[in-house]
Amino acid sequence: MEKVRLGILGYGNMGTNHTKHILAGESPEIDLVAICDHKPERIEAAKAFVGDALNVTYFADAEEMFKSGLCDAILVAVPHYDHPKFSMRAMELGLHVMCEKPAGVYTKQVIEMNEFAKKCDVKFGIMMNQRTNCIYRKMREIIQSGELGAIRRTNWIITNWYRPQAYYDSGDWRATWSGEGGGVLLNQCPHNLDLWQWICGMPSKVYAKLHFGKWHDIEVEDDVTAYVEYENGATGCFITTTGDTPGTNRFEVTLEKGKIIAEGKSLKMWKSKTNMTEPEFSATNKIPFGHMDFEEVEVETDGKNPQHSGVLNAFAGAILRDEPMVANGIEGINGLTISNAMHLSAWTGKEIDVASFDHELYYEELMKRVATSRRKTVSGTVEAADLSGTYNA
Amino acid sequence: MEKVRLGILGYGNMGTNHTKHILAGESPEIDLVAICDHKPERIEAAKAFVGDALNVTYFADAEEMFKSGLCDAILVAVPHYDHPKFSMRAMELGLHVMCEKPAGVYTKQVIEMNEFAKKCDVKFGIMMNQRTNCIYRKMREIIQSGELGAIRRTNWIITNWYRPQAYYDSGDWRATWSGEGGGVLLNQCPHNLDLWQWICGMPSKVYAKLHFGKWHDIEVEDDVTAYVEYENGATGCFITTTGDTPGTNRFEVTLEKGKIIAEGKSLKMWKSKTNMTEPEFSATNKIPFGHMDFEEVEVETDGKNPQHSGVLNAFAGAILRDEPMVANGIEGINGLTISNAMHLSAWTGKEIDVASFDHELYYEELMKRVATSRRKTVSGTVEAADLSGTYNA
Repeated sequence: MEKVRLGILGYGNMGTNHTKHILAGESPEIDLVAICDHKPERIEAAKAFVGDALNVTYFADAEEMFKSGLCDAILVAVPHYDHPKFSMRAMELGLHVMCEKPAGVYTKQVIEMNEFAKKCDVKFGIMMNQRTNCIYRKMREIIQSGELGAIRRTNWIITNWYRPQAYYDSGDWRATWSGEGGGVLLNQCPHNLDLWQWICGMPSKVYAKLHFGKWHDIEVEDDVTAYVEYENGATGCFITTTGDTPGTNRFEVTLEKGKIIAEGKSLKMWKSKTNMTEPEFSATNKIPFGHMDFEEVEVETDGKNPQHSGVLNAFAGAILRDEPMVANGIEGINGLTISNAMHLSAWTGKEIDVASFDHELYYEELMKRVATSRRKTVSGTVEAADLSGTYNA
Repeated sequence: MEKVRLGILGYGNMGTNHTKHILAGESPEIDLVAICDHKPERIEAAKAFVGDALNVTYFADAEEMFKSGLCDAILVAVPHYDHPKFSMRAMELGLHVMCEKPAGVYTKQVIEMNEFAKKCDVKFGIMMNQRTNCIYRKMREIIQSGELGAIRRTNWIITNWYRPQAYYDSGDWRATWSGEGGGVLLNQCPHNLDLWQWICGMPSKVYAKLHFGKWHDIEVEDDVTAYVEYENGATGCFITTTGDTPGTNRFEVTLEKGKIIAEGKSLKMWKSKTNMTEPEFSATNKIPFGHMDFEEVEVETDGKNPQHSGVLNAFAGAILRDEPMVANGIEGINGLTISNAMHLSAWTGKEIDVASFDHELYYEELMKRVATSRRKTVSGTVEAADLSGTYNA
């Protein structure tokens, strides 16, 4: 196999976007051979967009595309709830799968998908494109290397996901319990929740305050303040919303020997000059107002930020040469567990223990909301939006 | 009266510090005429420090100083628990009072002090020296002017209050329930809690996670993450500790028409170019990924930051010419209420309603802790520390 023959399932905003990148020649080892959407107007849009540039076969039915023999791999870009169903079916038929985030809407469903994926001898990746950002890769490298000691505090203010009401009105499924299963946590923040745990590890306890339809006419959360604790005693805070403008993206981690802050395109680090940890300093220092000295540096990165194409290309490399993926699909459970725990904490008013997370209870609580969920009235045709600059990449 | 004749009650760290500023000529309308401390070694230290520079009379007993006829005003710089008692006694004797922060340790006590203060025809100020900082004065001016619309979110990460164990070991009363009545909230953060409410208004609900003796061998809190809600629906987060180093001091307020961030010596503002509020924009914009445009400006201030001397000089102006003070003593209740609500929330695990704050319950809960409080063993003599650069000014 010289190239991976890819079929895209779902030609909405993300499907369109991936097609655009492939057409632009960003994925030389990917051959886009099929596009599937059950909405005829979407297929028309795809045909018009692709034209004669590629030899693409169009399908209205996923099963037909899966069984066509045309594809080696499927990119699943359907609404969130259907991610596990279609991913599992494709894997069952021996197809490699790249799934859009979130892995699913509720952990119970994703646990099932992960167990299934382990049995299938295919590659299963998840579109965690922000892991390709040089800032976060470098931040992770520094923290995981241990050169700054153990983590003590993680604060992420990620409020630059602004969306006006028109965004929510652009699809009747948007920001509904039945259509998306959540708001900013399920649609915008899967990247940040994944990066947070990828860089700092999983929290052990989650307590969250959520506000539902606070800034928009929607039924799901659009404002979140969460507090977490880690196994080693460190704490963290995660603040997000789609209502603030201008927003902030500032991710700060304090450790025993320093601090590191990612903000915008900058990565700054403060490192103990003596390589002493704070506990070591505090135990030996005799001066009441004594303090440690730090070196402040602007951290250099490799400057690369290939985003979606980077994830797809690594996926192709994994299929063709067994190279590592950007994010193994199975890891999608991590960010989703934090997300679900935040919802469950807000609904119950309780602190949630992550290790003993009650997947059944979450599912029940979510389904209660799905049962009374109302779809919005949407006027006009649904057009794929230009997503340039909307990923906080 | 040409000058205010001032007596300082308590010659510890703060008393020493005020004396230093007065000796340096920073308060031309203040005449330091008396210093009182019940510890003979402190009086000796004061005598050695003042020398012949001023004509100061020394007292071992507060009542004697108050009744000496030498003073017009008293600066109360004794341990926190005694602030209300001595302040009220001085007022009762017709003396003007400048009280160190916090106003007291528990609101019940400060309510009594405030009721008493209203009856006395004297000036009563509180040493909220950080209100003199040009950054915070300007930030307040902008926010209170309404030019950025209503507040939506306030986030203050104020973790640059680092203290090593030696600090806590420098006084047996330090960081004990019986000696200070709290930790970072009562000793370091009264300024920030006061500024927070001075600039953004009082929250209506407080939920807090506190950790006691987490980073130090102390019995009180040294790590705080608090979530608040305001009457208008805005939310806020306040994160503080004496354990982080290097710490952060970043105060961000998001409003309907922009954002303002105070960090270090910088004050940055983003202001809507169209003067539209976010709700107005969202209601009229038709583009799914539409966004508002902002002008980003580095805000100019008057650059003045007179700190303690500024507060003392305004106090003198209030006494001599009825000019406004930096902080009316009665306002000390505000920050303390937030502080007490954080403690009570952490102790009870509940969200605290500020308007119906249960002052009696707080007092009972605090006294339970005072009852089993242990004073530390301190070796060596207690020396006044050099406080330069420790106020986060």
